[in-house]
Amino acid sequence: MTCKVGLLGLGTVGTGVAKILQDPVDRHPLLQEIEIARIGVRSLLKPRDVEFPDGYITEDLQSIVADPEIDIVVEVMGGIEPAKRLILTAIANGKHIVTANKAVIARYGDEIFTAAKEHGVYVMLEAAVCGGIPVIQALKQSLGANRITGITGIINGTTNYILSRMHAEGAEFENTLEDAQRLGYAEADPTADVDGFDAADKIAILASLAFGDRIKLDDIYREGIRTITSADIAWAKDLGFVIKLLGIARRSNDKTEKGIEIRVHPTLVPQTHPLASINGVTNAIRVEGDPIGEVVFSGPGAGSGATASAVVADIVNVVAALKASSKGASNEINQLMGCSHDRYATLSPIQNIATQYYVRLIAQDKPGVIGDLGACFGKHLVSIQTILQRNIHDGFAEIIVVTQTVSEQNFQAAIADLKNLAALHSIPTLIRVL
Amino acid sequence: MTCKVGLLGLGTVGTGVAKILQDPVDRHPLLQEIEIARIGVRSLLKPRDVEFPDGYITEDLQSIVADPEIDIVVEVMGGIEPAKRLILTAIANGKHIVTANKAVIARYGDEIFTAAKEHGVYVMLEAAVCGGIPVIQALKQSLGANRITGITGIINGTTNYILSRMHAEGAEFENTLEDAQRLGYAEADPTADVDGFDAADKIAILASLAFGDRIKLDDIYREGIRTITSADIAWAKDLGFVIKLLGIARRSNDKTEKGIEIRVHPTLVPQTHPLASINGVTNAIRVEGDPIGEVVFSGPGAGSGATASAVVADIVNVVAALKASSKGASNEINQLMGCSHDRYATLSPIQNIATQYYVRLIAQDKPGVIGDLGACFGKHLVSIQTILQRNIHDGFAEIIVVTQTVSEQNFQAAIADLKNLAALHSIPTLIRVL
Repeated sequence: MTCKVGLLGLGTVGTGVAKILQDPVDRHPLLQEIEIARIGVRSLLKPRDVEFPDGYITEDLQSIVADPEIDIVVEVMGGIEPAKRLILTAIANGKHIVTANKAVIARYGDEIFTAAKEHGVYVMLEAAVCGGIPVIQALKQSLGANRITGITGIINGTTNYILSRMHAEGAEFENTLEDAQRLGYAEADPTADVDGFDAADKIAILASLAFGDRIKLDDIYREGIRTITSADIAWAKDLGFVIKLLGIARRSNDKTEKGIEIRVHPTLVPQTHPLASINGVTNAIRVEGDPIGEVVFSGPGAGSGATASAVVADIVNVVAALKASSKGASNEINQLMGCSHDRYATLSPIQNIATQYYVRLIAQDKPGVIGDLGACFGKHLVSIQTILQRNIHDGFAEIIVVTQTVSEQNFQAAIADLKNLAALHSIPTLIRVL
Repeated sequence: MTCKVGLLGLGTVGTGVAKILQDPVDRHPLLQEIEIARIGVRSLLKPRDVEFPDGYITEDLQSIVADPEIDIVVEVMGGIEPAKRLILTAIANGKHIVTANKAVIARYGDEIFTAAKEHGVYVMLEAAVCGGIPVIQALKQSLGANRITGITGIINGTTNYILSRMHAEGAEFENTLEDAQRLGYAEADPTADVDGFDAADKIAILASLAFGDRIKLDDIYREGIRTITSADIAWAKDLGFVIKLLGIARRSNDKTEKGIEIRVHPTLVPQTHPLASINGVTNAIRVEGDPIGEVVFSGPGAGSGATASAVVADIVNVVAALKASSKGASNEINQLMGCSHDRYATLSPIQNIATQYYVRLIAQDKPGVIGDLGACFGKHLVSIQTILQRNIHDGFAEIIVVTQTVSEQNFQAAIADLKNLAALHSIPTLIRVL
């Protein structure tokens, strides 16, 4: 049996997929039984880096998801539409789906998996989260014996690249972003990356797999890295930390309400932590579970080769499952390979978390200010671990406060109250500590 | 359908497996369809940490592998015999195998997989290599689209614990080993760990999966860590390295002969390398492939929880495959989930590798010695990167030489020749550089 693939998209990822399938030697033996039947692109005029016979490539995307010859539709075009519509049509036509589209899965996973269940097809999404790092498969299978308690990850390469360079060079965010854009590590519109939307999409998918519940994307607490300055990076270094944009998902410690805590924000990570040394565009994901303890996966989070590798692995998994089963996709296999849960998780609101905090504030450089600060934090039950003060100019001092682990709610109340202190000039940065 | 498991062994791993299966909440849904039917132990008198009804536990191991009710035999007793015989009997009786026994798989994988193919059963071995790190599954599936070019790993926890402590404390090998034995991190007879046999078993299994060929264990070049001294550790630090026992497998660079290079030896690893910061009993494996680039997995390499997690994941995989297939284990699935290759790899002899070398030697502290050393290396085409000399006592100096990347054969010839230098006292340590 040869399995026929319809490829939607022939950009860097699609080209990577085609190249692997055209050169199967020394790779998985099942690759020899997979054939690209047709390829759909937005424009036939664009020059391509792979060769196909005449007629293979079409602008009629709809004809691919309707083609009765095609068994698996591989969607690597990106963007919400027409990708979402094509995926749903393909499912309705009984085709299995392999997708690298985190935006569609994070937003419409619900609709897509419900349709997949109804039509008995697989939806595979290894490539949608952290490219070549095989974390989706691990959560679905290899770590399946565990009760997953937490996932912490550097899951956006662009922001990790920017923060790594800020650390290495003492540069400011804006300059580094411009340079990253010039070098192709950041998009012309960097919002999805630097404001944490991309990381939120990914942590939503990971949390959904880890905890077995659907996640509402809008419920995820999200902060980006625009407010991080070279001053914060320097202070973090002095305190023994590096600043990373993390996606964090864990079973809530909150006693009063069962739930899951999911958030994306810049975080002070101790220099000895396994995620602290992950630099540049590399991604890394730390999974904690019972009884395994802790496992860390790291590798290329994006890029043509890594993403294509994940897409092809997913195609192979579908082909293997189809060959093993005479019945088509069974619910049992969907249970193993898909995302079959159908209830929504209760996300614990950010006010309920407990964390350490780093605060950088500017205040008048006069006696009694530290006392006033301490009293204000104390009033709100925020215990302080470290206070550092550095004289700056014009009668103002820069003060760094690192708290003990405190309730977010109490902490925010203390910050609101601090703003009433006459001696306070401003609070440029608040960063949570891992 | 409930799948019945016969468990061979109820030590730390077996107990861990039983505990997971007795408490399936929030773990993989298929766990609820898996039942431990019977347990075989060496002695009924030993106190156990889990409870089973009367009659579940037996000393008659043979009766478990012959029991027609049992679908999957889980072998977690360790050692070569009777484990090997029980596995083969179970296969002959049509039972699927999940094993954590790297020694049996590395030595008798050939016989076991041939029998499994003949009888149409699965043999799963995630737990046999690096406990909870899901690298076997990744090599078989998630990274299957890649042409794997190399695997480099810290795959023995005991030696990594010893070397990490020698680095941290400047202690000597013998004292650290004794302490590790006292704390339970090393066996009373530490040979398997400190002489690299355990690591050789594991790299053989990993290489076999990565390159698709069977590996003869005796062909693997192997050195342990007994010769590493605090002096070497200190020099390594000064030079920007840490010393790790690595298992290395890669497609040979040797142009004249196609083959695979597999070796286990202490290695100088640059402090900035992702494996350099893996300390204590943690294991880590770096997989290089085309097109993925590089992926690193790290986590607990041994221990009850980690190994049990891998065993249960393998049971779940078998159950899922059985549920999907009405036909029993097909060759197609074995291709995906097993080790179905049947030719032996040509291993490149150690003489053919090219590597950098660190040499510590003791010579008379007199003019001209460095010149003689340099001339001797030069005669054998061994280029030198660094020479450092430190005066020690009684007229002898300690000299450290770090070579460029050179042919192992030339290097060994140079070392043999060096021994003829009148001024040379001894060559206590030779360590390859990553």
